[in-house]
Amino acid sequence: MSSVTATTATYLDRIARARAEMERRGVDVLLLSVGSDLPYLSGYEAMPLERLTMLVVPRDGDATMVIPRLEAPRVVEQPGVFALRPWNETDDPVAIVAGLVSRPQVAAVGDTMWARFLVELLGHWPSDATEYVRSTTVMNALRTRKDDAEIAALAAAGAAADRVADQLHAGEIPLVGRTEAQVSADISTRLLAEGHDVVNFAIVAAGENAASPHHHPGDRVIRDGEIVLTDFGGTMAGYCSDITRCVFVGEPPAEVADAYAVLHEAQATGVAAGVVGAACQDVDRAARRVIADAGYGEFFIHRTGHGIGMEAHEDPYMVEGNDQAIEPGHAFSVEPGIYVAGRWGMRLEDIVVATTEGPRSMNHANHALVTL
Amino acid sequence: MSSVTATTATYLDRIARARAEMERRGVDVLLLSVGSDLPYLSGYEAMPLERLTMLVVPRDGDATMVIPRLEAPRVVEQPGVFALRPWNETDDPVAIVAGLVSRPQVAAVGDTMWARFLVELLGHWPSDATEYVRSTTVMNALRTRKDDAEIAALAAAGAAADRVADQLHAGEIPLVGRTEAQVSADISTRLLAEGHDVVNFAIVAAGENAASPHHHPGDRVIRDGEIVLTDFGGTMAGYCSDITRCVFVGEPPAEVADAYAVLHEAQATGVAAGVVGAACQDVDRAARRVIADAGYGEFFIHRTGHGIGMEAHEDPYMVEGNDQAIEPGHAFSVEPGIYVAGRWGMRLEDIVVATTEGPRSMNHANHALVTL
Repeated sequence: MSSVTATTATYLDRIARARAEMERRGVDVLLLSVGSDLPYLSGYEAMPLERLTMLVVPRDGDATMVIPRLEAPRVVEQPGVFALRPWNETDDPVAIVAGLVSRPQVAAVGDTMWARFLVELLGHWPSDATEYVRSTTVMNALRTRKDDAEIAALAAAGAAADRVADQLHAGEIPLVGRTEAQVSADISTRLLAEGHDVVNFAIVAAGENAASPHHHPGDRVIRDGEIVLTDFGGTMAGYCSDITRCVFVGEPPAEVADAYAVLHEAQATGVAAGVVGAACQDVDRAARRVIADAGYGEFFIHRTGHGIGMEAHEDPYMVEGNDQAIEPGHAFSVEPGIYVAGRWGMRLEDIVVATTEGPRSMNHANHALVTL
Repeated sequence: MSSVTATTATYLDRIARARAEMERRGVDVLLLSVGSDLPYLSGYEAMPLERLTMLVVPRDGDATMVIPRLEAPRVVEQPGVFALRPWNETDDPVAIVAGLVSRPQVAAVGDTMWARFLVELLGHWPSDATEYVRSTTVMNALRTRKDDAEIAALAAAGAAADRVADQLHAGEIPLVGRTEAQVSADISTRLLAEGHDVVNFAIVAAGENAASPHHHPGDRVIRDGEIVLTDFGGTMAGYCSDITRCVFVGEPPAEVADAYAVLHEAQATGVAAGVVGAACQDVDRAARRVIADAGYGEFFIHRTGHGIGMEAHEDPYMVEGNDQAIEPGHAFSVEPGIYVAGRWGMRLEDIVVATTEGPRSMNHANHALVTL
């Protein structure tokens, strides 16, 4: 169930670093449930159900995993990392959590924890006495800096996604006459065949639909003479892939080819800006400037990228206003786009890891607008 | 993307009933994001990502859907149901939400909304001035009472799951020599082939693994002479299936056959107790009494059931302590189990809908311990 293959020593090290970060940030307790923070620190992934699983990490004191008794057999115990506190069907697990530590001044709660549990926790620790902060306050410094094993996992997932992109470019994935949904299912099958454990998304958007960045593939049949945007990724050995490539069925008209040349340059410029020490927003600005200077500024309607790792989207975000400095091991997408509503859209995306030797791309599939 | 096929009139009716319930419960504003409450009321399902989508429903005043601008094209507008308020990449969407209504005395927030957004909301509306309650406070009375179309959808999903159970019973799903994970994948494929859009889970647990109710299927090879527990379900046209059947490879020893006879009777007794006007906990008590009277009480380690509908687990829960009265249209599982740690386990589950004519089962696959 857990997507993580790290050792107990790794979890002990991560917990120690989390405590150091709690000390630095003045956080008294860290509460983690559904989401990736929990397996990152413990190797255990909570079931996304109504029975609460919660790792309680006091800054000073032992960590405890509060878990439904019937799920306790699923946990691979990590000696020294946490103790188990199973609860029974008629217990109140939030009361158990609140009883494990004295009322904290500052509590960091998991970003993707279900809000119902925070609502119940407010009954024990109201927000006038306890300040609540996001878990990323503690976890950002840990999870954004991928270690060598994590980078290797991202590279393997990226290579698997590249192979599907290569199949698209080679014409092995039929387009014309099929619906977007059919092509999406085909890409999903290929992601699994290339080694992904789960498909997270497989956007296929043809012609005017490509102007909607998060288009949901539907019954629209792909025709000759139009652009097809594909944006797909999955999780492989616990780490995510995410790649966007566009192809054109036939010869693209000059306006599409011209825009794509700008997009291609913008994406490469964004990647090159992803150097250690730059601010995250610098990557956005670098890509955006190329597009704006060419006159397409109003058609680039989203941020340039997002962090990636155990989650498809995580810190750090490549967006105006984020002045967080890029550090070695930061992994993120660079994916500018140009969208002309009602007509066409295009996006080009790689995953990049910042290193002291410069940006290292996890994707190497052809960046051109391949014609099929 | 949305799993809902209801009409605008249906959503208008549901919003009106939600407002009436807010009036009754003293709730000033209802805030819905990721999860099933949102599509139930609006037809739109939020993407489970870091960009906030939130339907803001004041008790008095128009509803507004706050949504990332790049996802706004995905929304099928429902005239009169809600207005759209797209936000841009550098906007603060929680501040936009907080600005839509004056500070509420009581706010109901979506159960499965990400906690990070409630953390941010606490910065605008601290919990000493605003009381936070779970969305189920408002939505329970609506969503638990399935209408005819919803019951038809549950019946269709149940029939599809039954067909897979029939295939298991007929020996069409090979067991011996395969791993639990392989059989799980096989069942998943069959759930899709029988019409499900998504597989939610496919537990396969052999021998001693069947004693862990939420066992994750792994590399354990299935052998002759042991019990195999299967518990699987998916979502079909927006509504969930969930069924558990056990088979025995060869002739079961007397202790297993005897226990199964008790389990079979307990499950039937639980189903029969699911009548309109009974308390939810009465279903649990009825099934549990049969098992306890036969001397297996300590081996039935979980509640008897959960509600089901758009979510695999939802209100109402068949558990000691829940005195909510069963109403026509309540849909729930009845799934007692007997688990002997380290040796074997068994569970038997149907989905049942309460009607004025008595409990109506959504599952009809053979309830016996079929031998293969």
